[in-house]
Formats: sequence, C-alpha cells, structure tokens
Amino acid sequence: MRKRAKKMLRSLSLKPSYLPFKSIFHTSSLRSVVLNTRAFSSAVSPPSKAIVYETHGQPDVVTKLVNIPGAELKENDVCVKMLAAPINPSDINRIQGVYPVRPEPPAIGGYEGVGEVYSVGSAVTSFSPGDWVIPSPPSSGMWQTYVVKDQNVWHKVNKGVPMEYAATITVNPLTALLLLEDCITLNSGDAIVQNGATSMVGQCVIQLAKSRGIHSINIIRDRPGVDEVKERLKHLGADEVFTENELEVKNVKSLLGGIPEPALGFNCVGGKSASLVLKILRQGGTMVTYGGMSKKPVTVSTSSFIFKELSLRGFWLQNWLNTDKTEEGRRMIDRLLGLVQDEKLKYKMELTPFNDFNTALDKALGKHGSQPKQVIKF
Amino acid sequence: MRKRAKKMLRSLSLKPSYLPFKSIFHTSSLRSVVLNTRAFSSAVSPPSKAIVYETHGQPDVVTKLVNIPGAELKENDVCVKMLAAPINPSDINRIQGVYPVRPEPPAIGGYEGVGEVYSVGSAVTSFSPGDWVIPSPPSSGMWQTYVVKDQNVWHKVNKGVPMEYAATITVNPLTALLLLEDCITLNSGDAIVQNGATSMVGQCVIQLAKSRGIHSINIIRDRPGVDEVKERLKHLGADEVFTENELEVKNVKSLLGGIPEPALGFNCVGGKSASLVLKILRQGGTMVTYGGMSKKPVTVSTSSFIFKELSLRGFWLQNWLNTDKTEEGRRMIDRLLGLVQDEKLKYKMELTPFNDFNTALDKALGKHGSQPKQVIKF
Repeated sequence: MRKRAKKMLRSLSLKPSYLPFKSIFHTSSLRSVVLNTRAFSSAVSPPSKAIVYETHGQPDVVTKLVNIPGAELKENDVCVKMLAAPINPSDINRIQGVYPVRPEPPAIGGYEGVGEVYSVGSAVTSFSPGDWVIPSPPSSGMWQTYVVKDQNVWHKVNKGVPMEYAATITVNPLTALLLLEDCITLNSGDAIVQNGATSMVGQCVIQLAKSRGIHSINIIRDRPGVDEVKERLKHLGADEVFTENELEVKNVKSLLGGIPEPALGFNCVGGKSASLVLKILRQGGTMVTYGGMSKKPVTVSTSSFIFKELSLRGFWLQNWLNTDKTEEGRRMIDRLLGLVQDEKLKYKMELTPFNDFNTALDKALGKHGSQPKQVIKF
Repeated sequence: MRKRAKKMLRSLSLKPSYLPFKSIFHTSSLRSVVLNTRAFSSAVSPPSKAIVYETHGQPDVVTKLVNIPGAELKENDVCVKMLAAPINPSDINRIQGVYPVRPEPPAIGGYEGVGEVYSVGSAVTSFSPGDWVIPSPPSSGMWQTYVVKDQNVWHKVNKGVPMEYAATITVNPLTALLLLEDCITLNSGDAIVQNGATSMVGQCVIQLAKSRGIHSINIIRDRPGVDEVKERLKHLGADEVFTENELEVKNVKSLLGGIPEPALGFNCVGGKSASLVLKILRQGGTMVTYGGMSKKPVTVSTSSFIFKELSLRGFWLQNWLNTDKTEEGRRMIDRLLGLVQDEKLKYKMELTPFNDFNTALDKALGKHGSQPKQVIKF
C-alpha cells in the first residue's frame, strides 16, 4: 500500500519528505488516497487541485497545477473548500525565493483567500460546514481547491460581503488600516501623503483616511490616461492627486492649497517617488516604507534628517502579526469587512476562474501592463 | 557726536543698522566709544576685536578682524572677556550661509566658547567678575575679545578644567551624550556602531559609551596611518575600529567577535559610510544621522525598512535645545565637565592665538588635511 502511494507521489513529481501535507503518510490517509474510498469522509479531505512550485524561480515557469491526495483531518483540523484567493506581489516574491518569510519548495502558492468550511476534525466546535473562513494571520498554501489547517489558523467572516473582498481583506486593506492607525496618531483634519496611490493599499488608504476626516495627498506615476486615474482616485475620496512630474517644482507646498502639510507619508515605490513623499512631508514628519515597486532604494539628504527632522521606518504586516496581534488583527479585519458591506471600502479586482490561473498569473506578473488585482475563483 | 560715531563705523565697513551691538547707538554708549573715556567703566564694555563677515561666502574670503566699539551694559547684561572659542563645522556653514539657523550678516562668527566675567549690569547678582562662563545654549558672536549678552545666555562653569574643554563642551560632547542617552535606552553590555569615529563627537561617543559599559564599533575612512588611528581610538575605549574597506565583506557580523549586534548607530558621514552603519545594525535597529561630512545622501534599501525593520532619524542639538531644554542641557554640560576633570573625557584640540585666526581657519577648512579641532585662544 505504502509502495503504491509513493509511486503515485513520484508521478506528481513531489518528494514525499517535502510534501506540504505530511499527514498523507499516515496509514489511514494513504489508504484513502490510493483506494479513493474515503475521499468524502469527514475524517479525510477531498483530493485537492493545487498550484505547486518545486523550486524557486519565475512563477510562470516553475508553477504547475498538481492533484494532491486528500489529507487526514486531525482532531483540531478544519477542511476548507476554497472560494477565492488573490495573487499578491508577495506571493510572486515567495515563489521567486526573494521574500524573507516563505515556505520551502515544493510548496503550494498563495497566502490569503476565503473558503467555505467543508468538514471539521472531531475536536472542532467553533466552525461548522458552510461557514466562510479566511486564514488569519495569512497562511501558506491557499491556491488550491481544499485546504486542511488547524482551527487556530481560521477566522470566521461575515458572508454578507462579496467573496473577492473576503479573499483579499487581510494583506492589503489591513496594511492600509495599520499604516493609518499604528504609526503616529492622526486626527480629523490632518493629512497624509502617499505614493503608489493606485495600488490596492493606496486605494484603501484614501478611503480609510476619508472616513476619518483625514486628507490624502496622492502621488501616481506619469502614465497614459492620467486624468481618468485622478478622477477615479478622487471619486474614492482623494483630496489631491499629482503625477511625479507635476511635483518637480520648487515650492511644492503651494500645490497643496488649504490642505495642512502632512506629518505622515507612505512609500511603496522607492527612488524618486519616495523623495517626493519626503519633499511634501512637514517638519518632523515620518515616512513609512511598506513596499518598493520601482526596485530603487530610498535616498535621503542629511539635511532632511537633521534640519527637517524627518524620521523613516518600515511597516511589514508579517512583523506586526508576529507580535501576538492575531486577535487585534481579526477585530480589524471585521471592521474592514463591515466597511466593505457598507460600501465605504472598495477596490478594483478581476476574478479569474482557477482553470485560467496562468492568465491571471501573467496579468499579476505585469505582462499585460497595469491590471487590477487578480483574484482566482475556485 | 552721533555723526562722528557713524563716520567711525563706516570706517569699519559696518552699516550701523546691521551692527550686532545696536546698543552702541545709545547716547551714553556712543560717548564712551568715541571719547574712549568710560571704556573700563562697569556700565560699558571695553572695545572688542571681532571676526566679522559682512556677507555670506567662503570663510577665508569674507571674514576679517574688526575693532568693535564698546557696548553699553543693560541692567541684565554680562560682559565676558573671552578666553577660548572653537571653529566648528557649523560655524563655517553659518558663514557660508548654508546653515538653517544663522545670524544675518554683517555678523560676528562663533557659537560657543568660554570667557571670564569682566563686568555685570546693575541687576545681575548670580555672576561676578572672574567667573568662567559659557553661552548655554550656544549663542552667536563668540569670536571676539569681549562679548556682552543678557545674563540668561551664560552658564557658570567649573574653573578646574582646561579652558579649551570648557570652550568646546557644548556643541560636540553634548551632542555625543544626547546621541547615547536621548535616542533609545541602552544598557550596559549593549553596543553601538558609528562612522566618523575620529570626529570630536566620535571620540566622545567612544568614551561616554565605555564609561557606561556600552561597546562601540567604529568606522573610519581608509587613510594613511590607519593603524595609529585605530590604536588611538582603542586607547580611548573603542572595542572595534574598522576602515570602510574592511567592512566590504559579505558576513560583516563575523567581524564583531563577541560584541552583540548594535541596536543603535550614529552617522555623521552619509553615502557608503552610512550604508555600513545600516549593515552592522541589528534587526529593528535605529540609525541617527547628525552630520553629513561626505556631502552624500543616505541610501536605504526597501528591505532594510520592511524586513530588517530599521528606523532612521536625525539629531540636531539646536532642535533639542529649542524644546525648553536649557536647564537639562546645563546639567549635562556640568556632568561632561566633571568627566573632563576626572580625565575620563578627552579629545584632540589645537590651541591657536587669536592673532593667528587665519591659520586656524585654514586648518578648520581642511586646507592642510586632517587636523585636530581648532580652538582660538584670546
């Protein structure tokens, strides 16, 4: 029996010892996998189709769709039938092997998503089949049809929001909320400045700031269709939207009109765009870097530190969540989903069927220019 | 009388309305200046020889020695016969017009120094002739033989220290002390890393850290006589001294031996040297920039902010003192002078007679290569 199972695994090109689901080596699990007799038993998850990468590398080269045998549910496990999961830049970087926190390959892609509880282990009482759940904090292996993880991984969410919002609420909107609430204290009437304003975090920052009466000054790349982009961001609540070139003026303050100089800035681009955030910040302001889309470093003059008294730091959701913030994070996610339900928080996404994963991946990799967030629908 | 005074002032090439000592236009003052009858009266200061600049520009071009008439002492004024005053980089930058806080020219150079009380105004009770005083916070116009300023400007200091230490204790040693005490809390056994370690602040940081059981990792330029410089800094208490080139290795931590990775770093150079400070800092560390000797900006990778969680900020004594810290600053200066008296704090200086000001200035301007701190002896 064990021999046949190993042979089958070889045919999947997955080395047994590296398999993400070690539980399939339990005898009962193997039996179910190979004989396929207990696939829909409550004690074993259904077989799963997963986006797997066996080595680090370019995602469009190293990922492939693999059939994974069902896994035995331990008493605290929950089996979730995935509904939707996004392709985030950090997912790409994990596959490339350049993200500091990543599973060792062979691994299944994806770190957030939403699913419906399919079955639960014998000791699980707080989840029932049909519940919508998200991994919170985010957890690896979401790009598959059935995920089995300990109940502590999952957080039940309101089914009243579109599944693509539940699937994407953690990595980007929670980052936006924490940028606004966890760095310095902002009051109604204050202002923030950010670059990368069309990013998902950027769109959320605009709306979350607006809902608290905080002005947002937004920087976007010079690009075709700038006017339409500006219009869209202003419709979300942006006070001002400037292209990088528009800010290449001596007296940048004169462009801000009645908006107070911002004490807080967010940078997800680096290079020249980060320098523009620094330029707009007021004396004593803080710039928080949470991304580096241009792949260029942040350059700061000595006088910015000494005479303008600027402070620079970073924000990484992973670190925030590591500091025992699971419950606080879940409360914030519930707040964010409440805003979604009240139509106070929205962002552009494109849903793509799981069968067309490669199309979504190509778009996420930027092969077709600027695209909305790609969300896989299982 | 007034006409003759104006004529005399013209001969000094100083426009009366710009003169630092406006009090000389009071009738009694003018009389004393012109007739020179009350020069040693307690109510009027003696004439002063001063290093004056009438416009911003290169210090060796725009400064000149000027005879300034005596000034009337208002009731709260103290007249100080200067003993010694240093030429600091910030003095140079003020004359060049590139320092954010500076007197408008025509002005007298110098921002710190020590002098002996010569005479006091009628309402002054806390100073007596013969007391040693320093301006605290630092104050403009110290490069002259007699300075008249309100009693609030002056702080009486212990006469038991060499005058060149009293003259230089504020701008650099106080900065060093605040870098170590005002940024993050350090405990005995912790470590700091700094570049520009041979600077006056650098030398003080080494000794002040040592006195608290804090290890120092020091970065110096590659230069002739490196071994001698290393020896000298180690003699002051440096744990490790590296040249920039020595740190161009992949695993910089392996060079640190038993010293813990530092949580705090000081940068007064910028450019590559600042990057080396960032490289040596531990996860979550802070780099404080207080100077930019290389005139190159600080460049920081996105991952340093996000994944290494580094924070960057600046320190400027002027800002610290502006926040109502006069008394705290004076207590710290007394502590520092105590360390000098106990021979626990020393740094290299060169005393130059006031008559040879131009020689000292040339050395301070770097015309003769690396030189000790230049201190004018009046």
